[in-house]
Amino acid sequence: MNGAESLLKSLVASNVDVCFGNPGTSEMHFVAALDAVKEMRPVLGLQENVVTGAADGYARMAGKPAATLLHLGPGLANGLSNLHNARRASSPIVNIVGDHASSHARYDAPLASDIAGFARPVSDWVHSSTSARTVGADAARAVRAAREAPGQIATLILPADTAWDAAESVAAPLPLAPRAQAAPSTIDRIADKLRADLRTVLLVRGEALLGDALIAAGKIAAKTGARLVCDTFAPRIERGASRVHVDRLPYFGEVATEFLAGTQMLILVGARPPVSFFAYPDKPSWLTPDGCEVNVLTHPHEDSVAALTALLDAVDGHHAEESVIKRETTSFSLNGGLDAESIAQIVTMHLPLNAIVADEGISSTLPYYDLLGTAAPHDFLNLTGGAIGSMMPVSTGAGIACPERKIVTLIGDGSAMYTVQSLWTQARENLDIVTVVYANRGYKVLNNELRRVGAPTDGAGAMAMLELNTPSLDWVSIGQGLGVASVRANSKRAFEAAFVSAMAQRGPRLIEAILE
Amino acid sequence: MNGAESLLKSLVASNVDVCFGNPGTSEMHFVAALDAVKEMRPVLGLQENVVTGAADGYARMAGKPAATLLHLGPGLANGLSNLHNARRASSPIVNIVGDHASSHARYDAPLASDIAGFARPVSDWVHSSTSARTVGADAARAVRAAREAPGQIATLILPADTAWDAAESVAAPLPLAPRAQAAPSTIDRIADKLRADLRTVLLVRGEALLGDALIAAGKIAAKTGARLVCDTFAPRIERGASRVHVDRLPYFGEVATEFLAGTQMLILVGARPPVSFFAYPDKPSWLTPDGCEVNVLTHPHEDSVAALTALLDAVDGHHAEESVIKRETTSFSLNGGLDAESIAQIVTMHLPLNAIVADEGISSTLPYYDLLGTAAPHDFLNLTGGAIGSMMPVSTGAGIACPERKIVTLIGDGSAMYTVQSLWTQARENLDIVTVVYANRGYKVLNNELRRVGAPTDGAGAMAMLELNTPSLDWVSIGQGLGVASVRANSKRAFEAAFVSAMAQRGPRLIEAILE
Repeated sequence: MNGAESLLKSLVASNVDVCFGNPGTSEMHFVAALDAVKEMRPVLGLQENVVTGAADGYARMAGKPAATLLHLGPGLANGLSNLHNARRASSPIVNIVGDHASSHARYDAPLASDIAGFARPVSDWVHSSTSARTVGADAARAVRAAREAPGQIATLILPADTAWDAAESVAAPLPLAPRAQAAPSTIDRIADKLRADLRTVLLVRGEALLGDALIAAGKIAAKTGARLVCDTFAPRIERGASRVHVDRLPYFGEVATEFLAGTQMLILVGARPPVSFFAYPDKPSWLTPDGCEVNVLTHPHEDSVAALTALLDAVDGHHAEESVIKRETTSFSLNGGLDAESIAQIVTMHLPLNAIVADEGISSTLPYYDLLGTAAPHDFLNLTGGAIGSMMPVSTGAGIACPERKIVTLIGDGSAMYTVQSLWTQARENLDIVTVVYANRGYKVLNNELRRVGAPTDGAGAMAMLELNTPSLDWVSIGQGLGVASVRANSKRAFEAAFVSAMAQRGPRLIEAILE
Repeated sequence: MNGAESLLKSLVASNVDVCFGNPGTSEMHFVAALDAVKEMRPVLGLQENVVTGAADGYARMAGKPAATLLHLGPGLANGLSNLHNARRASSPIVNIVGDHASSHARYDAPLASDIAGFARPVSDWVHSSTSARTVGADAARAVRAAREAPGQIATLILPADTAWDAAESVAAPLPLAPRAQAAPSTIDRIADKLRADLRTVLLVRGEALLGDALIAAGKIAAKTGARLVCDTFAPRIERGASRVHVDRLPYFGEVATEFLAGTQMLILVGARPPVSFFAYPDKPSWLTPDGCEVNVLTHPHEDSVAALTALLDAVDGHHAEESVIKRETTSFSLNGGLDAESIAQIVTMHLPLNAIVADEGISSTLPYYDLLGTAAPHDFLNLTGGAIGSMMPVSTGAGIACPERKIVTLIGDGSAMYTVQSLWTQARENLDIVTVVYANRGYKVLNNELRRVGAPTDGAGAMAMLELNTPSLDWVSIGQGLGVASVRANSKRAFEAAFVSAMAQRGPRLIEAILE
């Protein structure tokens, strides 16, 4: 057994059995070892931000880490922005980054770089293996680091000689530390606080937006009169008709300020106090009203599920009836040109039960979030770190984790170009993903932002940085070129036909929605 | 005047007048200022590795830095791998990276990250502006840092408030330090060495591969019997019929070792001693033969042009006749299927005078480098840092720098997918670039490397990471979708027709060359 095989077998032993990758020469022994360790599933991405974003999506849906396989510093660098997003999602990921053989390091060959330097800003744990005999143990440590609550990025650097030298053992999985719990006194204190007659927001993030924890949060809110709120960009939330209603914190700071106006108490459940996404001249960054009391039920690394269960007991809320999302039965016309609202209506109407929606529609979906929530029950995944080009890879990884579920990616054309290579992996793995590209032919959100930051202009110089209309992207050609069946919709009716057809079939599809 | 305008005007005053960018909200004042500072040309890239790679290509051909405009840490991160390549090319670049307003920094908003941490591994100079009143001066310092010999990466971080606050001045350009010169005694010593009867290699890199310096190097070699050699991946070299003949150091270590066997003296001109690109089990990294004497005429930061001129005097070589490349007149058949060799033959035959060739063909072009050199005189640009996805952006930037010259990009399909977004910028700017995609449907070089590293396998697991054939990429669709007229060639005859047609017209084109 060589180091690469020891590494792979140790990852599998630690229950990491999917590897998204794009290898190079220094990773060839790892690649060869994939034939010896059949339990590891290799998934190729044609650019590393697909690889890392897929690992994020996989982690969000599988609840466990995948490995990535990246080629030296530049390969890692190409995947950093989606590691940034993954870190903001608290997604556990184990990066395996090849390096030059240790004997080669001192020659500063063309591909040499400061790999650990690239890794540190996005990693909670970084280690470089020093021997083939330790890589198995290093892998087990990396998995444990990634799985540390609430989920971390672990980066293991693998000099080529540690992959090709002889190894002798497979490392056993390491036990995880018990999950940190909110103290009973904290539960009691928060229960007391909730009994006070204060206008209260319960701001929830992470695992507490899923399953029984979400229901518990809903019942606590119903029992105590608190308002149940989630961050603008929750990594994952269970939504849809009959699911617990959770208000979303608005994206724009001034709207969020208005939304929170009058709040006297904020209770954080795995969340942090709301702040503005960007700063603007003469606008506040801190969104909690002055004088509002801030209390913490759980920090992000603490067990929000257990804390909510205990809090539900403490407030005696089991019989409270949580507010749930109701299916809307409003009718709308299918005549005329396509706009973002009608897309949201059509998606909402036809989304199948238990789908996964990955949203990077930005200006085209932000206003229709509530509407989308009235669809059949589904998981909704958000762009957590603000680095665009996230959600097509996230869908790809979600598709590997949940092959039986329909996935819908809602994405702006500007975002979609960032990691367009994702479509090829979706085709190769025959994932059941439908990508809706909002073709508004510009970075529309930035047109708004240009005004909002107080820099009004519509001159040619500024627009040259914001408009994608010369030339227009032809998404049907791009999608087909990458192996994904693609159609264009210019009208509401055409979009509905395309979307219904896509929902009725399995496999990757793309719909270019031409916005009027 | 606000900080953004001061910055832009100061960049222009320092002779930086092209800005490749992809901005976000935190850069909106910079974007707005583009309307006030018309001397700055904005060029949009749809992913940041296009932006940074274009700045590399621009620098190689314009001989001066462009600015990049990048959105916070993730925007910079997306462009890091081509900054790695640019640094290995000694290309001067001034990165402007937006950051959150300083008042916003402490809130750790979703897009916050360690920007300086991302920047450091690829930057020779990093600074974060602290006030709108200093950004102009900071810009002048950044330009000076970028222009420090042999060319550096300077990264200026621009918190949003330093762009939007009031500024009062435009910074004057800073004088550069005089270029470091080889000592006269070094010239004399090297001249003496060259008179010794030793088998000598003159290894040349950088500016010495251009113009009169290259001719001087050729005459020195002719006069003294030294062999004139360049690195495998010279950033830029003037080649073609009638240009000075320079042997290229072979890519694979064992071939390079054989190439250098018997060399008794190595003289470095702006170059470093040759090392293997990768390490392999039981193969050497250091390629210079044991016992070979290594002498330095110039280090990379020293003036190789002046040193070669002085050395030519010292060896009294002005009347020596340099060895030049001869136009080959071999005939070849146009019948039958397409292969990499016939593409090289056709490109060589039809390349127009004064073209620029950007090569990332890897396994498809490495064997035909000598053949390509017999084309009409041209500049040849290489992938310097080994991070694939470099040369389509480099061509894009070269096209901005040299709008009157025909550019040909030779690129493998695996590489082309990395920064495929480049094609859109080529279309938008109507650049005269012809992209030849070698469609061999795999990372072919890695198939070779898998064997070379001693990890033979052809199992499904390994091949899943190396083959791009399920599904096949349709480059005509992809190119058209991005706005570039694209054709497919399945035969030698079809490729010749497509290439001749592309050479006869202006504007971006793509030829998908299906290799048999």
